[in-house]
Amino acid sequence: MIAAYSATSQARVNAALDTLFTPPSPELARLYDAMRYSVMNGGKRVRPLLAYAACEALGGKAEQANGAACAVELIHAYSLVHDDLPAMDDDDLRRGQPTTHKKFDEACAILAGDGLQSLAFSALLDPRLSTSDAEIRLQMVSALALAAGPAGMVGGQAIDLGSVGLKLDQKALEYMHRHKTGALIEVSVKLGALASGRAEKDELKSLQTYAQAIGLAFQVQDDILDVESDTETLGKRQGADIARDKPTYPALLGLDAAKVYALELRDQALHALRPFDAAAEPLRDLARYIVERRS
Amino acid sequence: MIAAYSATSQARVNAALDTLFTPPSPELARLYDAMRYSVMNGGKRVRPLLAYAACEALGGKAEQANGAACAVELIHAYSLVHDDLPAMDDDDLRRGQPTTHKKFDEACAILAGDGLQSLAFSALLDPRLSTSDAEIRLQMVSALALAAGPAGMVGGQAIDLGSVGLKLDQKALEYMHRHKTGALIEVSVKLGALASGRAEKDELKSLQTYAQAIGLAFQVQDDILDVESDTETLGKRQGADIARDKPTYPALLGLDAAKVYALELRDQALHALRPFDAAAEPLRDLARYIVERRS
Repeated sequence: MIAAYSATSQARVNAALDTLFTPPSPELARLYDAMRYSVMNGGKRVRPLLAYAACEALGGKAEQANGAACAVELIHAYSLVHDDLPAMDDDDLRRGQPTTHKKFDEACAILAGDGLQSLAFSALLDPRLSTSDAEIRLQMVSALALAAGPAGMVGGQAIDLGSVGLKLDQKALEYMHRHKTGALIEVSVKLGALASGRAEKDELKSLQTYAQAIGLAFQVQDDILDVESDTETLGKRQGADIARDKPTYPALLGLDAAKVYALELRDQALHALRPFDAAAEPLRDLARYIVERRS
Repeated sequence: MIAAYSATSQARVNAALDTLFTPPSPELARLYDAMRYSVMNGGKRVRPLLAYAACEALGGKAEQANGAACAVELIHAYSLVHDDLPAMDDDDLRRGQPTTHKKFDEACAILAGDGLQSLAFSALLDPRLSTSDAEIRLQMVSALALAAGPAGMVGGQAIDLGSVGLKLDQKALEYMHRHKTGALIEVSVKLGALASGRAEKDELKSLQTYAQAIGLAFQVQDDILDVESDTETLGKRQGADIARDKPTYPALLGLDAAKVYALELRDQALHALRPFDAAAEPLRDLARYIVERRS
């Protein structure tokens, strides 16, 4: 179910993304190559899936969320490029491939990340990808800027970097994740919902509750996989978080309690979707998948 | 004349910028400190001045361009933070003060830059700073994303980094500068004009010609100052461009011819403003100032 929906979403967003990396001149070829390399890398496209599924849950057509789907994936991709830099997490492998600064160079990776962030805002408003009315599109831009910015994702990364080696309690860990990964997952759902042109206030609230729960579930499961999975399946070094003495849920709660917590979060997410009909089934499937995945 | 207008613009944009760096929680204090440090540093605020002056040239009130003025300055500030990083220009001094990665650390500087870019889009749409109608604000977001992105400023930086040690001809040098510094100067004028709510197509075209000319004049004069001025006046190492074997106008044309070229560009800028009345005087003053300044 979710595998088929995910494959369709991937194909849809990849087709839309693929239009964004044509260099306007030969001088810019290397920068655009680096951006394309950072994005078109076989990523799972979870955030675009959320945007499409939220749009459809409200009765919209998935295609209406193309701009939103591209935008959140571009923000995600840029954050990974910068996160992998030597001054940050210093990773040389991402999804089994050399990270952007390894494939190109550090300066190029910094600029590719910067460019991808701008491109996210361009994509969100690209007339080929987005046709919502002006007021809705403005809401979308504001929501994306807030979620990607210092009070959202970037803030979470700053807290994360400041937490290495510290003993965070669960509240502090959750605060960090709500920013670092949660904000972008939340806005993926919100942008998709807005793109449908049919989002009512109550529905946005329910979808926000859903998104917060799966965002956290996603992170808890990531931490579990960092302990349990192997490097090949994961496409990155297993045990990397532990090696860095990063705070994780298994470290904090114990592995079994972390697994129970992931399931509770899944149930919270499903509960939030009770007002929705069968059109929200992909969102429900995703909530189930997040805590079952092995990579 | 321009000194008084510049002081007023600085005070206006600084007051608006100052509202943007209050951390939403203590965990984010360091990131917000780094962003504030990167922006509230006594910068000349040339781009905000352009936004205000373009808005007034069309009969708008300067205050209408507050969002635009903040947005272009935030983009400018983020580009400097990233440009100064060790993997880029590796500068330890900016306006006579430690660069952000020297004052904080590299990871913090990368994130502060990333956050400032998001914040620029938030500021552009901040209801406290911007009141234009929805369609105009959407045009502003699209224009900013394009100018800041890989086909604009970021692209220019990529070309610049790829040009160190190369013998560029004047055309190639100009292509680089039109992206690296020109795109943001151009969009500063455009956003200010749009913020007035009175921009007609012909006027936008004239203002674009003006902005392209002063953007280039600004760069030519920068290159001249890099040769002629001293480190104390400049607030950065004199001769830094030459030391890095970066292509410059004096190196390409000779110092005297570079000076003549700067004056020609000023005259092109003034010529483009002929359709405008006395309300465009600050823009005219700025064109004159750019080629007369000593720092």
